[in-house]
This record gives sequence, structure tokens and C-alpha cells, in this order.
Amino acid sequence: MQGIGPPLATPFDASGAIDEAKLRELVDWVESRGVDFIVPCGSNSEAELMTTDERSSVIEIVADTAEVPVLAGTGHPGLQETLESVDNAADAGADGVLVVTPFYYHHEQSALEQYFTTVADESPLPVYLYSVPAFTGVRLLPETVGSLSTHPNIVGMKDSHADIGEFIRTQQAVDDPAFRMFIGSANVLSQALELGADGGILALANVVPEVCSKIYRRHEVHPERARRLNSEYVPLNTAITAQFGVPGLKYAMGARGAPAGHVRSPHLPPDAAAKTALDEILESLDVD
Amino acid sequence: MQGIGPPLATPFDASGAIDEAKLRELVDWVESRGVDFIVPCGSNSEAELMTTDERSSVIEIVADTAEVPVLAGTGHPGLQETLESVDNAADAGADGVLVVTPFYYHHEQSALEQYFTTVADESPLPVYLYSVPAFTGVRLLPETVGSLSTHPNIVGMKDSHADIGEFIRTQQAVDDPAFRMFIGSANVLSQALELGADGGILALANVVPEVCSKIYRRHEVHPERARRLNSEYVPLNTAITAQFGVPGLKYAMGARGAPAGHVRSPHLPPDAAAKTALDEILESLDVD
Amino acid sequence: MQGIGPPLATPFDASGAIDEAKLRELVDWVESRGVDFIVPCGSNSEAELMTTDERSSVIEIVADTAEVPVLAGTGHPGLQETLESVDNAADAGADGVLVVTPFYYHHEQSALEQYFTTVADESPLPVYLYSVPAFTGVRLLPETVGSLSTHPNIVGMKDSHADIGEFIRTQQAVDDPAFRMFIGSANVLSQALELGADGGILALANVVPEVCSKIYRRHEVHPERARRLNSEYVPLNTAITAQFGVPGLKYAMGARGAPAGHVRSPHLPPDAAAKTALDEILESLDVD
Amino acid sequence: MQGIGPPLATPFDASGAIDEAKLRELVDWVESRGVDFIVPCGSNSEAELMTTDERSSVIEIVADTAEVPVLAGTGHPGLQETLESVDNAADAGADGVLVVTPFYYHHEQSALEQYFTTVADESPLPVYLYSVPAFTGVRLLPETVGSLSTHPNIVGMKDSHADIGEFIRTQQAVDDPAFRMFIGSANVLSQALELGADGGILALANVVPEVCSKIYRRHEVHPERARRLNSEYVPLNTAITAQFGVPGLKYAMGARGAPAGHVRSPHLPPDAAAKTALDEILESLDVD
Repeated sequence: MQGIGPPLATPFDASGAIDEAKLRELVDWVESRGVDFIVPCGSNSEAELMTTDERSSVIEIVADTAEVPVLAGTGHPGLQETLESVDNAADAGADGVLVVTPFYYHHEQSALEQYFTTVADESPLPVYLYSVPAFTGVRLLPETVGSLSTHPNIVGMKDSHADIGEFIRTQQAVDDPAFRMFIGSANVLSQALELGADGGILALANVVPEVCSKIYRRHEVHPERARRLNSEYVPLNTAITAQFGVPGLKYAMGARGAPAGHVRSPHLPPDAAAKTALDEILESLDVD
Repeated sequence: MQGIGPPLATPFDASGAIDEAKLRELVDWVESRGVDFIVPCGSNSEAELMTTDERSSVIEIVADTAEVPVLAGTGHPGLQETLESVDNAADAGADGVLVVTPFYYHHEQSALEQYFTTVADESPLPVYLYSVPAFTGVRLLPETVGSLSTHPNIVGMKDSHADIGEFIRTQQAVDDPAFRMFIGSANVLSQALELGADGGILALANVVPEVCSKIYRRHEVHPERARRLNSEYVPLNTAITAQFGVPGLKYAMGARGAPAGHVRSPHLPPDAAAKTALDEILESLDVD
Repeated sequence: MQGIGPPLATPFDASGAIDEAKLRELVDWVESRGVDFIVPCGSNSEAELMTTDERSSVIEIVADTAEVPVLAGTGHPGLQETLESVDNAADAGADGVLVVTPFYYHHEQSALEQYFTTVADESPLPVYLYSVPAFTGVRLLPETVGSLSTHPNIVGMKDSHADIGEFIRTQQAVDDPAFRMFIGSANVLSQALELGADGGILALANVVPEVCSKIYRRHEVHPERARRLNSEYVPLNTAITAQFGVPGLKYAMGARGAPAGHVRSPHLPPDAAAKTALDEILESLDVD
Repeated sequence: MQGIGPPLATPFDASGAIDEAKLRELVDWVESRGVDFIVPCGSNSEAELMTTDERSSVIEIVADTAEVPVLAGTGHPGLQETLESVDNAADAGADGVLVVTPFYYHHEQSALEQYFTTVADESPLPVYLYSVPAFTGVRLLPETVGSLSTHPNIVGMKDSHADIGEFIRTQQAVDDPAFRMFIGSANVLSQALELGADGGILALANVVPEVCSKIYRRHEVHPERARRLNSEYVPLNTAITAQFGVPGLKYAMGARGAPAGHVRSPHLPPDAAAKTALDEILESLDVD
């Protein structure tokens, strides 16, 4: 894995079922716009709103359709379900698994460390850590990541702390140069790349994959331009994540012609005010 | 449902598997100590650490063993899995379902209202709302509960806000006198009962079911004594919930001879300092 | 100190100056409605919006006017200013000082303990601890209060945690039966009294002092009626604190004919929606 | 104002009094190491632990000693005290005032906007906004800053959100190219400079002013090296702010030979573990 990967939105039909045809189309849609890998069953895929079987099915469809590598989200609050999802992902043809910090219950760093160690021991696929306090309420601390990075089957991390200082301290805590660091917030993609990030796993890559890709590809040759382009997309990224969540994300995708499909309950479509705000942001940008 | 119900701990064996024999024993253990109903697959049951199939199996075992009514926890972050669990609970012989507010993603009250309405429309069993911000980060507001209480299949609530003022405002927002209000924190059981609560769904009822029962039964005739007894158990209750979580709960159960079994990953057994703290609290109480 | 004390609102004139005439009237207004003591320069007095000199002046006016004892708020983020305010309060004729946990900077419990010890060592007046996390972001833990309660010049506490479980644990941590426990939230006044609280220091006592007084006086003889009366006022209390803050408090006071005066910047008067909500709550209550 | 300014630590003697001699030395110490301006009475100056008179005195000493411009911290929770401090700062010879968002009470953005407008209307000195949620619990939102930036006497901002995405959105909300944006966290100094920040007001500039200055001066010619140097100091900066606060800051200053003096109550000196952690970080860095 390297470069840009979207935590791929999952298109549902009006009844709430997975829309396989649209999902395949969406894989093509993001691939043709330059993403380097695809992340089915991430947070922005509404993975937590699907059953374990549905998640496997989504991973299978994506792995079957995609020409780029597939990093499958397989994390749950508990070990059993996580291991089951990891195995399913391997069977479905994924190339790696992205495992979110267990949520709901409160765990110390020592418990998180033991949990990820067991997952990595058991997983047939390479494991990427995933820390996203906005959803889980927990942070994977730099020293915990440093310790876990020595496990041969833990090969990288998605850091969605949106905290550059902590990103740097995490990098410093990791000794292994092969350990992949992905940033999880498009707001700081170019900054993370300049600090040595290996890429980004970004909600925004569902809406404007070509822009994320351009930032990634240009940051070394034209850092100034990459940064400027990135800044232009901060309002859109904020709108489709912190402000309006997945409903905002899917609306923006739809506005761009991506086969995003419906949201799934308890998500509701964005209300009129949210739509207007998103329309205004999209119109202000140089996208078709 | 009325009176005291434990969100029943789920005994796991050393390998992490559900220990059916111990689970049956535990049902007997709490029943013989006077609980009025049992809640398998609540938060304190480590339900979020089990697969959907395992939850069904736990509910089935409990419903098969119990002589008191069974209120099964069936909530998930998403509607599909919740509906699946609700159906499983009905098949397994539960008498009602307790549905936690969807977590992980952030939802407005309007989305929560629509979600619970759909669950209640579809559920073959009566639905009890469950709000526990300590785990979910979200509150079901009084006006939302008031509105939902008019649904013919939404018959009660477990309120784990531990906020007496909000409990009162929720009562006031509910017009239907048949709507059951259960308090979710043993710290304020007697206070809630004096305000008209129909009972409590209490982690503490796993450790000292007979004490919870005594508070419930005495509060009308000897309110002063019920309150004093309740206060004595506040340190224990705080220790097995906020301070040490489910690992503390199961340790305290074990200290009392209850068949609590092992915790499940990512939970770890309590460390030495936690054990000492729990031992001291237990010794200070008049329990065997 | 014992019974009900309002953290007395400070009437300002349209230019923002302290309105001495109205302040004296307000002292009479609450006294004639049965309060047992008065707390100038509490949080609800907008004390943090006044200069140290203004606070002294307010305390002096109140102490000069009041016939009941005066407990003066004298806390600041730093020791020097707190000691200065304590001395001013003594000079102004106060009977005790209420010292809020230092805020702005983050302090460990050990630092808070040392701070309060120094204040108590230096203060010519008896010291009451004051913990109000909604404003300060910090909690004075039960064991810290227990330890501080052994200081001969620390004689009581105002607990605004609105957490009955923690109130009980604080009582249990305090060995000294003479230590006064005041509850800081009218939402749980009757519950705290039933648990042995010595009274309440309540924003609500600015709006309906006679109701707070009635709850206090009736809770031993008619606990049920006291509790029911208390519950009726929970929506009003919630509105004048958590929902609309001091602007809501002063508006409600004005609606009752109390000489509340203007709010002080950065406070703004409540907007139209807040006024309507407050009007509706007041109309639903049996107050003139 | 432009470039690097330390929110200057205030040296106190063992009795807690302001140590004027050391304060003058400290001004020389930071000036000789290349700071561009000095900020007395910022958060890291323990300003909130000083009386209004003491703050004036500190500003006067600094303004009298310094050869670089002086930006004086003058914010309080209330308007009156803020205006008094602003006037004092003008009399003391400051060149501008830095006004923190009012804290303790909760205010809507509209109240904050009106407050800052009044301060700016009245202030004889140019006003810089200051938002630091870690201390105040409130954020000045991008649109509020945008609106305030049109006031002729509001000329800049110190943004201590440590959130690059919000920094960018704030820049975008400000139309006036003359409006000065200072970053308040050294963890992201080079990132902010690359985005067009005018400099930094940084706790770290009390400990290693020459390093902050070097990052500032090099970022345009050697952005890569500036960034690398910045990253090296992230652990130190984290330790003297989030981890150990002002006590850690003063200890680190002392270790470098800066005349930092004692902390003031309720601050306590760092404990042994904190000192060891700070020593290790300092030793790992290439500073004398």
C-alpha cells in the first residue's frame, strides 16, 4: 500500500440493500481517477452499519473488481468478531487489513497493545492499525504504536488524529523504516506527506480522487502548489466529515456523478441547509 | 418487566468461548438471590465483544434457563444488524428487547427518533430504549423519549445518564403512565425509585443481587433504610463500573462466589492495584 | 451556614455599572422570601466578570444590607488574588468565604489540596470549598475533600457536580460530622437533603427563593411532597443554568419582579427563542 | 508584530513575588537569542495567577527593558477587567494587546463577537485575538474571526487550536491581507509558516528561542530543513505544554540557564518523574 486510498463509500439502494452494480461502478470510478489502493469497510463505508456477512460480501465485490490493492477494514469492538472479519477478508481476496482500535468499552493502552498483538498473530494478512478518536473516543498513543510496530505482521497505521504534533511523535516512536504511515485526514495531507507519510486514506478521495492523487503526486516536485491545492479542499473535506458526516459525503459524491447510492439507517440524507452548504462549497471549487 | 434486572455478565472460559454451564449456573445464582428479570447481552454482558450468533446463543441459553422474564440486549450501530438481533431474540424466547442508541457515527436526535421508530415498527417484541452516554457518547434527550413513548411498541427505557435532573425531565416528557422507566446506575437506585422509577437494570445486580432487591423492596416502607443501604454500596458500584469496568465487575462477582468466568479480549483481568481496591471495598461491606 | 443560600445575582445598570440600590433591594427581596444566608460573588453573580475591587464592593453592600449570614465568593485562578479577595471579604463583613477550585490552568489533585490548605491557613474567615466542573473543567475528588476536611479552617463544601453518587462518596470521605455539605444544583436538592446535606447554594434561589426554602423546610416532615415540588422546578432550574445561563436567570428573575438588572458583557440578554421558552416554563408553574 | 514572540515566563521568587531583576534578565536572554517581539502576560506567563496590578507591573518592566515590540496579554473573563488591563498596557508602553476569548462562562459566537468588537472600539492599542481551547474550552470559529478581522483595530490573531485544517479555514475567512496570523503551537510552526502564517507566539520560545527563530528564518530558503528541525523539538514542546504545563516549561528553562524563577501557586514544581522525562528530552537534543 502506498499513495491514496479511499475508505470506499458503500452504495445502498432505496431499501437499504447493498447495490452491487453501483459498488462495482464506484470501484471503476475511483480507479479511473487515479487512486492507488481501495479501502472497503472503512468508517466512511458505513461498515459499522453492516453485518459481518455484508462486510465480507462488500470486500469480495471490491477485491473482485479492483485492479489496485485492497486494504479491508475488519475492526470490531471485540476480538472474536475482528478475527472472523480478518479471515473473511483473506478469503475475499484482500491484500491487507485495517483494524480500528476497539471501541464502546474503555481500554488502557496495555489492553489495546495486547489486542492488536493477538490480531496480528492470528491474521493471515498484514495488519494496519487504525486510530480515529472522533469515532472511538480513544487514541493509540505514540509509544503504543512504537511498540506494536516491532511486530512482524503489523506493517502500518492510519492516523486520523488530525494532530500533526502527534503524527510526528508517532513517526519518532517507530524505528522500522518499512512501517507505513497513512494520514487519515485530507485537511493535512500535504503536511503529512512533507513529513514523510506514505500516503493518505481519505474520505475526500471518494469525492475528488483525482485531486487527492494530484496532491500526492505533486508534493515532492511542487510542494507549494500541492499545499495550495490541498488548502482549497479543506472546506469541502471538513463538510463531508466533521460537519455533515457520511450523508454529506454521499451527497457530494452524487453531485460529482459518482455512484454513491443511499445512506443506511440510522443515517438520514442531509437536510436542505446541509445540501445548500455543500452545493456552495462544490461550486466554489474547480471541479466538474 | 418491573423491579431489578442484572445486565447479566457472560462467563467465558479460558479460551474465550462462552461457558454455557457457567452461564446457566449464573442465571440460577442471580434468580435465587431475588432478581425480577434478567438482561442478557447488555453492556455489562460484554455483548459488544460477541458476534451476532454468539449473542443469540447467550439469549437462548438464558431464556431457556430463566424462570423470570428475559429482556434481551439487541442494539448495534446499524439498523440491519439490530433488526437481525431483535428477530434472533424473539426466536430465542426473550420477552422484550433493550436497544441501545446507535453508536460510533454521530446522529442527530431526529435520526435517533427515526431509527427507534423503525426498530419498533419491525420488532415482534416490545422495545425498551437504552441510553448510556458513558459508552456511546450520545444522550437520548427527554423530548425525544417523550415522542418515542407514544409508539405502541416502545414500552420503556433504561436511563444510564446518572443524572437525576434529566431523569425527572424525561419522566415529565412521557405522557403514558404505562411507560416503564428503569434506572441504569445503582448509585441512584433509591432516588430513582422514590421518583417513581419502575426498577433498575444494574451492573451491581450481578454482584449483590440480594442487596439491589432489598433496596427495591424496602424503598416504599422504609425509604430511609433503603437509601442508607444504597449509599453503602455506592463505592462498590463505582468500582465495578466507572473505575474498573467489566473486569472489575467479574472480579467482584468471583469474590462472592458467582460463576463469572473470564473476561474477553480486549478486556484484561484487573491488575493487582485494582484487585486490592476491590477487595478492600468488599471487605468493608456486610456481604459474605 | 445552613439551609438555602442564593449565589446572589448582581444587578448592573444599562451602562454595566453595579446598581447599588437594586442590589440592596434584591437582598431584601430574597430575604423576605425566606433564604437562610446569601452568597455574593458566586458564579451566578457574574463574579468572574467583575474586578477585584467591584467584588469587594458587592460583598460590602450585601453584608451591610443583609440580616442573614453572608458567604462571600472569593476564588480566582491564582493564590495571590484569592487571598486578596479573602481579606477584602473579611473587611467587608462576610461570615465565611466560598473558594472555587482554581481554573484556567490544569492542576492535579495534589496541587489543589496544597492550594486550599494555604488559603485556609491564611484566611481569617472559615473556608468552604467549591467544585463546579461545568465552569472549571475540574472535579475536587472525594478523597481530596476528605483530606481537606480535616483542616480546622475548612468547614464545608458546595458540590455542584450534580452527581449524587459522587456526593455520597464525598460524604463518606469526610469524617467530621460538623463539615457542612451544600448541594449546588437545585435539580437534586431534595435528594441531597434526604442524604444529609446541610442545604443548598442554588441559582434557583434567586428566582423562587420561597420554593427552595419550602423544599428545605418540608423535606423532613413531608419528604414526598418536598420531592414532588422539587421535581416541578427542574425544568426551570435547567433553563436558568445549563440551557440559558445567567442571562436566562436574570430574565426569569425579572419576570418574577425581582430587581435583577442587566447582564454584563460578554453576557448578552437572552434571544427571543430563549425568552419564549422561559416564559412557557414560568407560566406552567404555580408562581406569581 | 512579525516572527517569533515568547509568551514570556514570569520569574517569581521563592515567596511568590515577581522577581523584577530576573524578569529584566529574561527579556535580555530571549532577545539575545533572536526573538522578534515579546508577549508578557500570556498564558505561559502565569498571567491568570497574577492580580491586575501585578500584570501591569510586569508589562511595564518588560516594555521598559525590551528593545523589540511588546504585545501584552490583557484578557479576562469579563469586559471591565479586560478594558482596565488594556488601558494599563497602553500606559505601560505596550505596542499591542493580545486578548484571550473570555472564559469560565459559556458564550455563543455572537457574544464573543460583540465582546471583541467593544474591546477593539475602546482599546487605544491594536488588538490581537487569542483562541486557546486547551485553557478556555471555547473556539473562536473561522467565520467569527473573518467577521472580526474587518474591524480597523483588530489586526491579528494567535491561533492555539493546533488544528491545521481550522487554521486554513480561518485564513480563508479573513479577507484582509494585512491581518496577522500567528500560530500558538510550536508543534506546527513550520507547517503554519508554509501556509503563510506571520509567525508564532510559542511557549517553546522561552526555552529555545534561537531554535524557533531559526525555523522561522529558514523556512523559506530551506523548508525541508526548517521542518526537520521543528520535528526534533516536538517532544520538548509537548512536554512543556500539554504534558507538564508551566512547571515543566520553567524547569526546562532553568536547565538551559534561563532566569525562569519559581512557579506560583496553585502550580507546583514538577515531580521527580516529570524532571527525569524533561531531562531525557533535553539531553536528546542538540542544545547546550
